[in-house]
Amino acid sequence: MKTGFIGLGNLGTPIAENLLNAGHQLFVFNRTSAKAEPLVKKGALQCKSVKELASECDIIFSIVSDDAALKEITEGPGGIAACLKKEGIHVAMSTILPATAKELSALHKKHHNHYIACPVMGRPEAAREKKLNFLVSGEKKFIDIIKPYLIQAGGAGIWEFGEEPAAANTAKLCSNFMIISAIESMAEGIQLAKKSGIDAYAWMNMLTHTLFSAPAFINYGKIILEEKYIPASFKLKLGFKDVNLVLSQASEVKAKMPVGEVLHKQLAKSMENGKGEYDWAAVADLLK
Amino acid sequence: MKTGFIGLGNLGTPIAENLLNAGHQLFVFNRTSAKAEPLVKKGALQCKSVKELASECDIIFSIVSDDAALKEITEGPGGIAACLKKEGIHVAMSTILPATAKELSALHKKHHNHYIACPVMGRPEAAREKKLNFLVSGEKKFIDIIKPYLIQAGGAGIWEFGEEPAAANTAKLCSNFMIISAIESMAEGIQLAKKSGIDAYAWMNMLTHTLFSAPAFINYGKIILEEKYIPASFKLKLGFKDVNLVLSQASEVKAKMPVGEVLHKQLAKSMENGKGEYDWAAVADLLK
Repeated sequence: MKTGFIGLGNLGTPIAENLLNAGHQLFVFNRTSAKAEPLVKKGALQCKSVKELASECDIIFSIVSDDAALKEITEGPGGIAACLKKEGIHVAMSTILPATAKELSALHKKHHNHYIACPVMGRPEAAREKKLNFLVSGEKKFIDIIKPYLIQAGGAGIWEFGEEPAAANTAKLCSNFMIISAIESMAEGIQLAKKSGIDAYAWMNMLTHTLFSAPAFINYGKIILEEKYIPASFKLKLGFKDVNLVLSQASEVKAKMPVGEVLHKQLAKSMENGKGEYDWAAVADLLK
Repeated sequence: MKTGFIGLGNLGTPIAENLLNAGHQLFVFNRTSAKAEPLVKKGALQCKSVKELASECDIIFSIVSDDAALKEITEGPGGIAACLKKEGIHVAMSTILPATAKELSALHKKHHNHYIACPVMGRPEAAREKKLNFLVSGEKKFIDIIKPYLIQAGGAGIWEFGEEPAAANTAKLCSNFMIISAIESMAEGIQLAKKSGIDAYAWMNMLTHTLFSAPAFINYGKIILEEKYIPASFKLKLGFKDVNLVLSQASEVKAKMPVGEVLHKQLAKSMENGKGEYDWAAVADLLK
């Protein structure tokens, strides 16, 4: 099966590289074509358009920045849905609204090919270490087809959320909400510890060896304690986009999110302060 | 050395029982004397007053409900500080304000005996399983004396925060803030998942096997998913007290806690709704 990859950003590049290293002939496309060069040097075949790539491939992985970008490459006469062959599979890894996934899934169905929602959890270094987690939803038989690819792409965990195409995107939004919530709480705790004159490192060390002995706290705790927000593994502006999606989904289904609203305010203020390109843990700076 | 224990509540009882099982002669006192009976049956010696107990013992452990209760048993002519022998040690396990610890430590010094701050992390079942974590601060040589007792009392971890007596209490407040923050975030995430029509159990299962693979999320996630808030392992009214202490400390040192303020509001509303005796995870009910 011929494989395509669209979206060679911070996270897309190492995922595509994993597929290439696994021996797949990989067709690639990126809006900024220069970003494809490192992969082309390793044997990837660069396409000039989405249409060209989609016409070549049986399975296409895409990871673009937001709902609008995903719609742009999927819809229209030159889009993935129209150009992908019958029974082809589009594996969409972007973090988007559940409603968008639903819409694009229906569009693919109209063109007799298939859409699988497959948002990814993990930073670029996790992709390189093959420690990603893929959240998937869509028709079971097509999930089973793409699973081996997901493992080759760097997946340590593949978590299925059923046949409803939007489900994995909902799970991803809920998860990103948990991460930014953990970041803000740690930041507030660390500030309180520091301003009260205790050793914040000792406190975080205790916490991450007891009740909070999990990667979210170990990894982000270190970043916040060291105030090392550049280079960003996950940019604050993307986190802000995701929290907007979270609140939009919450409003859609009438879910109350009082902490979610605070996180939105803090990220919005950080954006105003010019922190968009910093790691999203830089939200901690507002507490100083 | 003769050992005393004051405060036989939900958590105090299994801790005192551990000390008794370790072979210590244990003098006990509780305001509601009936609560001492199970321990007396196992060999504990019941005292009629704090004064009687303090005059007998070399080391006294106390775990009472709040700052006022700890002051009541420690201050005054019949209190621990005045009645404990010279060089005796008072190990105070309550969750209280750092300022109170400072004050009581000074009072003990005046009476030529010693105060060690030793707030505890863990629910009653953790005490029975000897999986508690003790946060300690105070003079190093007295910490070294009480350490073997803390292990016998059920301590799996003993975390030292230096000689400043208030430090362990600050660390405890910061930790309790993290727990209630984790509870509220999970509750909001679970509601969003449910109302969006996805399997919230599957989502929490993924989360607690990946980025949030820690006891705080595993244990409270289960309680929230099952909505099983009674019997309470940690009562909401005590959590509300603790969050009040957190905000009081934050105001004292001018630390900003936007999420802390939301948690305070949510717990206050839950108290108004009569949930004081429920587990503090019942704060999740507000989102329904």
